[in-house]
Formats: sequence, C-alpha cells, structure tokens
Amino acid sequence: MAPPTLHKNQLFVGTFIHSKSLNQLDYLHDAAVAIDKSGKIVAIEPQCCDQGKAAEMLYPKLGWGAADVEVRACEEGQFFFPGFVDTHIHAPQYPNAGIFGNSTLLDWLNKYTFPMEASLAASTRARRVYGQVVRRTLSHGTTAAAYYATIDVAATNLLADLCLAAGQRAFVGRVCMDRLAPDYYIDEGGPDAVLARTQETIDHMRRIDPQGDIVAPILTPRFAPACTPETMAALGRLASEEDLRVQTHLSENVGEIALVCELFPDAADYASVYDGFGLLTPRTVLAHAVHLSEAEAALIKKRGAKVAHCPCSNSALTSGECRVRWLLDRGVAVGLGTDVSGGYSASVLEAARLACLVSRHLAMPYNAQGDASRATLSVEEVLHLATRGGAAVLGLDRKVGGFEVGMEWDAQLIGLNMVDDHDAADIDMEKKSGDVVDDGGNVDIFGWEKWDERIAKWVYNGDDRNTKMVWVKGRLVHQRASSASS
Amino acid sequence: MAPPTLHKNQLFVGTFIHSKSLNQLDYLHDAAVAIDKSGKIVAIEPQCCDQGKAAEMLYPKLGWGAADVEVRACEEGQFFFPGFVDTHIHAPQYPNAGIFGNSTLLDWLNKYTFPMEASLAASTRARRVYGQVVRRTLSHGTTAAAYYATIDVAATNLLADLCLAAGQRAFVGRVCMDRLAPDYYIDEGGPDAVLARTQETIDHMRRIDPQGDIVAPILTPRFAPACTPETMAALGRLASEEDLRVQTHLSENVGEIALVCELFPDAADYASVYDGFGLLTPRTVLAHAVHLSEAEAALIKKRGAKVAHCPCSNSALTSGECRVRWLLDRGVAVGLGTDVSGGYSASVLEAARLACLVSRHLAMPYNAQGDASRATLSVEEVLHLATRGGAAVLGLDRKVGGFEVGMEWDAQLIGLNMVDDHDAADIDMEKKSGDVVDDGGNVDIFGWEKWDERIAKWVYNGDDRNTKMVWVKGRLVHQRASSASS
Repeated sequence: MAPPTLHKNQLFVGTFIHSKSLNQLDYLHDAAVAIDKSGKIVAIEPQCCDQGKAAEMLYPKLGWGAADVEVRACEEGQFFFPGFVDTHIHAPQYPNAGIFGNSTLLDWLNKYTFPMEASLAASTRARRVYGQVVRRTLSHGTTAAAYYATIDVAATNLLADLCLAAGQRAFVGRVCMDRLAPDYYIDEGGPDAVLARTQETIDHMRRIDPQGDIVAPILTPRFAPACTPETMAALGRLASEEDLRVQTHLSENVGEIALVCELFPDAADYASVYDGFGLLTPRTVLAHAVHLSEAEAALIKKRGAKVAHCPCSNSALTSGECRVRWLLDRGVAVGLGTDVSGGYSASVLEAARLACLVSRHLAMPYNAQGDASRATLSVEEVLHLATRGGAAVLGLDRKVGGFEVGMEWDAQLIGLNMVDDHDAADIDMEKKSGDVVDDGGNVDIFGWEKWDERIAKWVYNGDDRNTKMVWVKGRLVHQRASSASS
Repeated sequence: MAPPTLHKNQLFVGTFIHSKSLNQLDYLHDAAVAIDKSGKIVAIEPQCCDQGKAAEMLYPKLGWGAADVEVRACEEGQFFFPGFVDTHIHAPQYPNAGIFGNSTLLDWLNKYTFPMEASLAASTRARRVYGQVVRRTLSHGTTAAAYYATIDVAATNLLADLCLAAGQRAFVGRVCMDRLAPDYYIDEGGPDAVLARTQETIDHMRRIDPQGDIVAPILTPRFAPACTPETMAALGRLASEEDLRVQTHLSENVGEIALVCELFPDAADYASVYDGFGLLTPRTVLAHAVHLSEAEAALIKKRGAKVAHCPCSNSALTSGECRVRWLLDRGVAVGLGTDVSGGYSASVLEAARLACLVSRHLAMPYNAQGDASRATLSVEEVLHLATRGGAAVLGLDRKVGGFEVGMEWDAQLIGLNMVDDHDAADIDMEKKSGDVVDDGGNVDIFGWEKWDERIAKWVYNGDDRNTKMVWVKGRLVHQRASSASS
C-alpha cells in the first residue's frame, strides 16, 4: 500500500517557469531537469539546447546510463510549471459545486452542506464522489491538497486511500463537530469519542503511508462554533504531543464572528479562541481570515499560523474580501484554497484568477478617490500563492512549489492553443454542418506574445485542457487523452 | 452573399429551458419545437413523450411531410437553451484577452489596446484575428453580438463578411475616434471624412445582407473623450435620419468621467453629453454605466437607451461595480457584454457568472452590517440578462432570446458531464501511465440533482465544452467535434 517507486530516472527538457519571488517568475528556456527514482530533482541545467546535449552534460555527472532514463521534451509553446497547492478543499461537498443559491455561510451550511456531507457515510456514494474529486483536482494540476472529509471514519479513510492510490499529496482530516450541528450529522459521545474517532483515521493513514510522503493526517475542528471547548482543548493537546497539522476556519463571515463572540464571551477575539486551546501553531491552516483585526493578524503572525485565501468562496457566499496584501505586509503566510463547495470551482487556477479579481474589488474604493492602492495582486503574485505560497502554508516549502535541486518533482506540463493561419482561413468557407473546434482549450496564442503575456493569458482563460500532464514526486498521475498526439 | 436558406424543416425534441421572467426559468420536458425553412419557430408542443408522437401531432397541422423534416432529439441530460447575446465586444482586442497587467482604463487604452487595434489594418492579421473571434464566440454559444471593429474600413467590412459567412448575428461598427487618440491610430480628416468612412461600412453591410437579417451596421463613437463635438453631432443626425443603432461607452471609470467633465464643462453630466448630440436613443447601447447618478439613470430611462453590463471587464480593470439591480429598478434595460479585452473572456457564460459575483461584492457592505441586500443577482436573473435581456438591449427581443412561436431559432444544445460509477471505480486501480479524462467538461452531474441545480452547476462551472451545438436562425453554425459520439 506504500507509494510506488519509479522504475527509471527521468529527464525533462524544454521551458520551465516557476516563482522566483512573490512578484517575479523565473523563465528557464532550453533547460533540462533531472529527476531520480525517488522523485527528487537532482540536477538543473539551464542552457542545453536539446536533449542530446542535456544527456551529454548530465548523465556522466549523475552516473546515469541512457537506458535507465526516460526523457520527455516539451513541444513548441509548452512549458513545465510547478503543481498547484490547494490549501483548503472539502472533498464531500464536491457534488454541490455551484449549488448555493443566494445563501450566506450559516444558512448555506444547514441548507446545502450538512445534508450532502452526511450522505457520504454510505461508502458507495463516498467512493463515487471522492474518486471524482481526486480525478478532477489532479486534472486541474493540483498536486497537493488539504482535504476536509466528513465526520465518518470509514469515508475519511477511503479518501486517504484514494489519494494514495491516485498519487496526490493529501492531508486528510476527519471533521470534528460536536455541537451546534444537526441531529443527523454530529460527532456524538463527548470529547473522548471525538478524539477516538479522529485517532482511528490518524492510525489508518500512518499504516498506509508510514512516512507520510503522500498522505498524512491533519486535525480538523470544523470551526469554533461547532466544537465544544473540551474537544478543542483535547485536539490542541494532541496537536502539540504529536506535532500534528491542524486546519480550521477563521473569520469568514460577520454572522459567524458574532456567533463566536456570543459562544466565547471571554475570548479577546475569534483568533484568540483557537489560541486559547493550543490550536494556533506553525502547522495550522486557517481558511478565509477575511475580517481580521490588527490584533488577530499580529497573533497569527506571532504563532506562525498560516492562511488559506479562498476568493471564489468569499465572493460566492458574499462573505467579504480578504486583504491578502495586508496579511502579507504583516508577515502572515498565505496560500490559495478552492474551498469547494463554498467555492464553486475545484481549480486552483480559477482561485488564482479570482484572487486577482477580489484584490481589484478591494482596490476600487481607493481608485475611485484617485488614490493608488497596493491591494491589487498581479498574475505573478497569484501564481506564487498557488505554488510556493501554498507549499509554505502546508509546511511543504522545502519539498515542492518550485524547481530546485533537492525538491521533489511535483509539476504540470502546460500547453496553450496555437492559432494557425489555417484556423483563421476556415471561417469564410460556406459551412456544411457547423464548425468544429479542436480542444486545445481557450487560450489562443497568435505567436507574437511575449512569455509573460502567455502566462497572463493562461491565468485568465486557462482551464484543465491546458494541463496536459501532471506529476507528483516524479510519478505521472494525470495525462489528458489528447496530449499524446497534440 | 445573402444568408443561405435552409433545405429542410426541423423538429427538435427533448428538454427546452428558457427565461420566463427576470427571475424564473421555464422548463419544458418531453417537448417538441418545430422550425420552418426560414428559421422561425412555427410550433411548440409541450407534452409529446417522443419524436414519433411529436411528428404525429405536428406534421399534419404544419402541412409537413416526414421526408422534408430533419429531426434532432437531445440525449439524456441534455437540453436546448436560447443562444447568448453579447451586447459589447471589441473584436480586434481579442488577442489581448487576459493581457492588462495592473492597469486601469485610460493607461490600458494607450498601453495595450490602441497598438493592437491599429495593427489590424493589415488584412491578413485582421482575417486571422477576426476569424478566431467569430469561431470562439460561436463555440461559447454567442448567437448575436454587438461588435466594435477598428477605425479601418476594410477590416471592419471583413469582420462583417466573416460574421455573415459563419452565420453569427452581428451588429458591426467602425470605431469613430478623431481626437485624444495616438498619432498612429486616429480618424483623420475632420467630421466629414469620419462620416464618409463610416458610410462606406454601412453601405457594405447593406450590400452583403440587404435585410440586415444576420449582419447590420451600428454607429460607434468610441466614447465622448475620443470624439469631437462635430463628429458626435454628425453621428447623432445620421442615427436619427436612418434610424441606425448606436453603441458607445459610458461612465466606466472615475478618471474617464473626470476627463469628460473637463472636456464638456457645459454638460450636466456624462450621459447628457451623448444626449446633447442626439446619441441617446432607444437604439443606443451604453457599455458599463458603472458610476451613474440618479439623474443620468433617469435620463437614460427617459430616452429608452440600454445598458451593456460588463462585469468581467469592470473587475479586471478595477473600474467599479455596476449596480444592475439599481438600473433594473429604474426601468433601464440591461444585457451582458464580455467587453473583450477589457474583459478577459469571450464567453457570455463567464460574464453571467461574473455578474453573479460582482452583485455579491456590491451586497457585501450591507451583509457586513447585518442588512439584507437586494443587489445579489441569482442564476436565473443572470441567464435572463444573457438571453432575453441582451436581445432587448440589441432591439432583437421579438426575434430571439426565448422559445416562442414566431421567434427565430437561435439556440444552443447543452450537455453536462454524467459521472457514472465506472468513472469513480477507476481511481483506485494502480495507474499505468496516468489518468485520462474524457472531455465532457467540468460540470459533473451525479444524477440526484434537480434541474435548477443542474442549471446552477452549468452557470458556475460550465464552458464551451458544454455547448455541443449552436444554431442561428435555424442554421447549424457550430458543432463540437465530440458531440457526434457523446
């Protein structure tokens, strides 16, 4: 059941693009990247024209024989990019993607979310839904994800099994919620029972992936209103004793914040509630963080906790506009989350696009007064959040998120649609039975675009059709049907 | 060169969904719609189970023989939907879709837009770009569009030719701009020359499509700052004399509004500038209308002018949040525009999705104070804007936008991705060479969803892969490669 090892070394040749810093991408053309059988990047050769040259330069250094290497060169216009990191996604809510009406957080939970999550206790349904989530997120280039499952132990373990089998890096959390939940979907039996069920899922994941290379557990108190103080305290102790990751929600919606104030009248603020139970740690992922005060941001920074920014969800549920620049200015680490199904899309690229747009909505009042605003995020910045930023949020920043020797090969091969003259000439022929569009996706490249313009086009119009192949730890985990030929 | 006529009558059988009112969709299941050789809907039979029954009920009434009818039944889960109307799109800016950096309107025009538009005076380039725009917008289900071309006569005429050949309903406007434009891209020679060039394009369109059934001219003063008062006055006279359509921009960005105030110190406001030149008519399409005053909205309503709401563009260029509900409350007609390339996407479905999100950003300050907000637009409402709303904006509301006897068949066949059990079972098999996803798009239907939920899923995660076929005036104008088999 352990992650399979690779049979060959691998050499990738072509254009490699990744984040160098928050606002700068590094473009490596005619480069080669060598991956050993453990999935690690062992060499990067920035100038080597073609694969023959690359082999000549690298194999002797690495002690590789040509027969022991699989070579893949990207085609004209294609490039390798680091895999995306989804720092916040609810796997069981996937069938509800796009279904939220005009609701906001608290009514959305009761109307759409809890019934769907509860229904996944049935294992055939869970297998069908979780299988599709993992397939879809891989097809969108998500190589690592922090998943919320449900309160159900068996279904949570199944999700971990599926991620491991598919080869997607995943932190999988059984949701803890022992109050203010509906009768049909609540963690029963008191804190000891809640902890015992959580422990069962931790044990399962440690059994199927002892090193936690691909799949590892994460403690998941749903959010403060849905957990008794006793349960949060117990989870905080467990997190500390075993140095476990934690994920929860923070300051998503004003109604939720008011509820927290009511439930925890002695706490200074929402963030302090978690802190009081030892749940604000350097291994904690806080989803949303939309309405934080200065004091809360300072506390989060002090504890080293991280933020999952979920722009798609925050807009869809009318929650608010997360001040990403404000958080970054305060030294808080930020990554992107799809937050399916508060967010309607399972694509981190869509989350990156929406992060651009939400930042512009934040900037509007300033622009309207003729002031400059620093709120606006650039394409380069949101791609950093989607890769290195997310990796840092999940504590994987030394392993994935960029192309560096010593890091692991979590990557995607991106191809854009090259518009040729033949395409254009087609249009004014008399039609027979309608037009046919081949499916290279919607990003049309006419050939005169600079590389940074191609990247911008990809961010704004790209989708899973542009993600031709995906690798995790060197293993090919997704490939589009058409990518063999086109 | 006139639009081709159809060789057969057509019968469509299955599920038909269209807007009944602003906030209500009408779902017709097991229905049949009959289209005659002129492309008109001649009968709608709401209850007829199958095509045999439909033929039996309809053919005698219509005097049709079976040999003279082409029948198309939609498959399980598919449905017919009215074609989308794009009330505002700049065809020559298409290659810049997604390329705008962190710019706002006035610097965006100079940095990205004018150079691209000017470059399309070269006819090979114009053919390539315009061909691709028409192909792409058809593939997104756009059956009617109000296009801005460039100042170039030949390229404008070429765009009209391409729309006619492809069978897409189009209002095509040569852009008038005779001041405050760069040296390399300005309408030269004074108002008479500007008018003469515009007349050339009008004459061309009347020649190729004398009835204006598919292609017709539209007067296009770019926006007030870029037109001399003399030119606007001349265009206003022409509009009135020949009852021509007009399109322009209004109140997109605060810098632009300040510029208008400076240039027209005697006008009461931005809308009054156009009104003073006779350009605010029932046949006028005003793009954006973001920052209108009550007086401007009242004037627009009084003149019967219409608004093209372009949410994608308004967010991308940080222009502001158009108050659609506020406009509708004041009796102003509103449709959706992609505004390529201020808007990054050529898809009206994306514009509909963004209209939902922008309306939620408008609602946020209210929600944050615990107040209800009427600003929020529902899925049903944005689909109305995308079809009947847009048709009304372009003066086509008696012709297209819904399924009614007497209207023309501008429609799309929509198919969503049915997740079967086999898909889900796949995932935990040991992978050979990565996973393969067949390309039914990203809208996953598990089978338990109600019809309104399917529609919501389509709006939030749909793309051109869901638009299997497209018809304009009964003619099949687009068909996906895969739609024959899936």
